[in-house]
Amino acid sequence: MSNQELDQLRNQVDELNLKLLDIINERAKLVQEIGRVKETQGVYRYDPVRERGMLNLIKENNDGPLKDSTVEHIFKEIFKAGLELQKDDHSKALLV
Amino acid sequence: MSNQELDQLRNQVDELNLKLLDIINERAKLVQEIGRVKETQGVYRYDPVRERGMLNLIKENNDGPLKDSTVEHIFKEIFKAGLELQKDDHSKALLV
Repeated sequence: MSNQELDQLRNQVDELNLKLLDIINERAKLVQEIGRVKETQGVYRYDPVRERGMLNLIKENNDGPLKDSTVEHIFKEIFKAGLELQKDDHSKALLV
Repeated sequence: MSNQELDQLRNQVDELNLKLLDIINERAKLVQEIGRVKETQGVYRYDPVRERGMLNLIKENNDGPLKDSTVEHIFKEIFKAGLELQKDDHSKALLV
């Protein structure tokens, strides 16, 4: 396989990276929305049962090649990013 | 906002999680393919310049709400997963 073909594969990876970026940010907006709703209900934001439920659904649907443990690890980082964003929103709300 | 609306938001998050899962695995397959190509060329798999280039492109395209630093952190985990997969493939190839 030539370097041109390697470049093509890399371009495809770049495209998927940007798709992932879009969806991760779209997801973050939903999580912000959920945070705002919970805030009005006075509910604590972090919900380990919900997190476990999300991870189970993800792993049930994992056809690889990535292992369940790897997928779980990546998603935990994505969940953490969402929670941090909610925390930022909460701090800002307190400053108003 | 009612709990029904909260459930709707959560369903949307679940849908995005599964979309992310699909793309992360699709990306992993491409990275495996790239690993095989590099293997035949005798090139070392980890390429920090390429990784930096991918991150720069991602950050240039980041419109938030997630911060660049958070996005970088998540993608580094995704990159790591790809590299580990290539390493597994390499070990298996050595066993043949």
